[in-house]
Amino acid sequence: MSKTPSTRPWRPSGIVTLLSDWGLEDPYVGAMKGVLYREAPELRAIVDLGHEVPPQDVATAALFLEGAFPFFPAGTVHVAVVDPEVGTRRSLLVLEARGQALLAPDNGLLAGLAEREPGSILRRIDPGRLPIVGASATFHGRDRFAPLAARLVGGTPPASLGTSCADPRELPAEELVALEDGSLRGTIVRIDRFGNGITSARREHFLGSDGERRFTCRVAGRDLPLRRTYADVARGELVCLLDSYDRFEIAERDGDAARTLGLARGTQVLFVPMEA
Amino acid sequence: MSKTPSTRPWRPSGIVTLLSDWGLEDPYVGAMKGVLYREAPELRAIVDLGHEVPPQDVATAALFLEGAFPFFPAGTVHVAVVDPEVGTRRSLLVLEARGQALLAPDNGLLAGLAEREPGSILRRIDPGRLPIVGASATFHGRDRFAPLAARLVGGTPPASLGTSCADPRELPAEELVALEDGSLRGTIVRIDRFGNGITSARREHFLGSDGERRFTCRVAGRDLPLRRTYADVARGELVCLLDSYDRFEIAERDGDAARTLGLARGTQVLFVPMEA
Amino acid sequence: MSKTPSTRPWRPSGIVTLLSDWGLEDPYVGAMKGVLYREAPELRAIVDLGHEVPPQDVATAALFLEGAFPFFPAGTVHVAVVDPEVGTRRSLLVLEARGQALLAPDNGLLAGLAEREPGSILRRIDPGRLPIVGASATFHGRDRFAPLAARLVGGTPPASLGTSCADPRELPAEELVALEDGSLRGTIVRIDRFGNGITSARREHFLGSDGERRFTCRVAGRDLPLRRTYADVARGELVCLLDSYDRFEIAERDGDAARTLGLARGTQVLFVPMEA
Repeated sequence: MSKTPSTRPWRPSGIVTLLSDWGLEDPYVGAMKGVLYREAPELRAIVDLGHEVPPQDVATAALFLEGAFPFFPAGTVHVAVVDPEVGTRRSLLVLEARGQALLAPDNGLLAGLAEREPGSILRRIDPGRLPIVGASATFHGRDRFAPLAARLVGGTPPASLGTSCADPRELPAEELVALEDGSLRGTIVRIDRFGNGITSARREHFLGSDGERRFTCRVAGRDLPLRRTYADVARGELVCLLDSYDRFEIAERDGDAARTLGLARGTQVLFVPMEA
Repeated sequence: MSKTPSTRPWRPSGIVTLLSDWGLEDPYVGAMKGVLYREAPELRAIVDLGHEVPPQDVATAALFLEGAFPFFPAGTVHVAVVDPEVGTRRSLLVLEARGQALLAPDNGLLAGLAEREPGSILRRIDPGRLPIVGASATFHGRDRFAPLAARLVGGTPPASLGTSCADPRELPAEELVALEDGSLRGTIVRIDRFGNGITSARREHFLGSDGERRFTCRVAGRDLPLRRTYADVARGELVCLLDSYDRFEIAERDGDAARTLGLARGTQVLFVPMEA
Repeated sequence: MSKTPSTRPWRPSGIVTLLSDWGLEDPYVGAMKGVLYREAPELRAIVDLGHEVPPQDVATAALFLEGAFPFFPAGTVHVAVVDPEVGTRRSLLVLEARGQALLAPDNGLLAGLAEREPGSILRRIDPGRLPIVGASATFHGRDRFAPLAARLVGGTPPASLGTSCADPRELPAEELVALEDGSLRGTIVRIDRFGNGITSARREHFLGSDGERRFTCRVAGRDLPLRRTYADVARGELVCLLDSYDRFEIAERDGDAARTLGLARGTQVLFVPMEA
């Protein structure tokens, strides 16, 4: 949470994004979109950030949100519903960041972003402000989140929905430890479709006078060079690079690094300074 | 079909939904959307209800439509193309329900909804009113349904497309039998992504003076309590609840009821009154 | 490429389509859509042509584009990013065809379409005209293609982005060989979700005074009749027909021809004239 809260007025872009673990086979995503279009005549478009988050995997949902939300226009409303506790009394949160509004259950999904985003404000939604549509006690995405998102699209400012929240539930922090010898020890947090291993190390962890190119990456018994892009190494070679999450990533040019190296979520990665 | 047909004038919302068994890998859904945007300048948005209906599984398509369409605004056009008989002379139907229009082949997809929705009107589309785009005899979704939906979006009222249809093809009824001892015997009609078993029993089958909580649910040799939501039982416990379809559902909190109980489509479920 | 270039002025429809091999699990597609909505206030809708192209399979991407793009309104912008060489200096191409604009890397994706579409113009994009958003050297879809598509949506004409390109990289031609006995030998280029085998033979290869019905199709040791639609043969029978790609396709009514015949990409198909 920021010390300097944003005072930017809320100007909806008319865009709503959805992120869930519901899959696209059942009609649950469709029903939620129906409510959005019904309740928000001002809605311009709905964008799916994805519905294939592994069931109840809140950490992966948080990572996906981090990877996509910064690219949307100010005034966008993001709704992330990965919610192992649907039907309990856990509250709903709204995060204002970069002029956008992010809605999610209070289960850790937003806490990390709130911590990292300068000027962001996290609020706990006052249950009295919560519109409820439909009778289901099991489908909060459709019956609580969608009507709430519709209000934001209609102009209701996030600030009016609740009061500042200083104690959100947090996820276990991603592992990133500074060792005595100057190295950083991180982990793989995600294997993507291409077999790239996304790590817990971000650009800002390596900012220096001459930028980010001052270490090698040690993983699965191999030392990998840091390069700018896949094409900076030969086909079939392994490389570490800053990826589209602005995190360091283990990749294999035209190959599948996770398969080659046996990477999985949780695999340790060591970033060793070149000068060391 | 209703005895009191709707007289509400047709006011398109500009929203079209699509439901099919085409999958999202091939470009078939994309091509159909192209026709919609080309033929309907008034189109506001297309919503996918889903394209992963098991190939030619009309009953599942009907269930998905039932689960999603009620949440859309009046004036929405739903197009459901699960059509084992593409290329034959089977006709097309349009159902007017809740101020919305639903298009599908005459293969049972709409008959159950037409039966259940008060005030709905089912019509058989007059082939002479059927716009045809493109040369393909194999892709009615793109070449017949899309141009037809475009006309509805453009303001053509469903009533002008054909005459009332009293003899649609029907699916075998979902099994739900009242037994002599006062119990109801139903079946599982769908296992969803979370392993929940959706049954043939709906809220209205259990309406009484004190609501729906007066029975236990017997399935796979187990007696399950009826509760309001997943969180009303402990983690790992089984429960029966009213779900987002407004049907009774067999679920396991934070687990996969279908795997735990060996549920599949067709598994018998007994609803036994508590007083019995 | 055509000898008679189009002089139609560029009038954007506000529709952008996306085709990629990124899958829908990761947030990459979502981030790209964010950039599109942020950079193009005139954007009316984004349509996914599909994101399940097999990784780096440029030929399949080209086939999918061929199957969908003709159905969109003039002024549509199609972005196809299947790009084994992201991060290299390969250039970007824009194809103007049927009043639409197609963007893709210079890797063969557009060359076949440019060859076949009458009046189309292929241009190599001047790197100086290329807007770049974001820092990533690995995600050209989001950081180069999306801003470029946004400009086209905003009214920038394709002609202003670069100069005519006569030497695009080409894919190996789909096999279609005229044999001495008058037969045509083609191959299966795609097995679709329904097990239909799409071939390299198109309608125009069989145009004659009395149309396309003058041959039999020999595949996997079987002779198949040419019919107009699936329903022209009995259930379980095999057939060859003109499909929604306007290509000849091997199908089984209510069945899976690929499984029945053991078809795969590359399987040879012989088209034997009936008179022969």
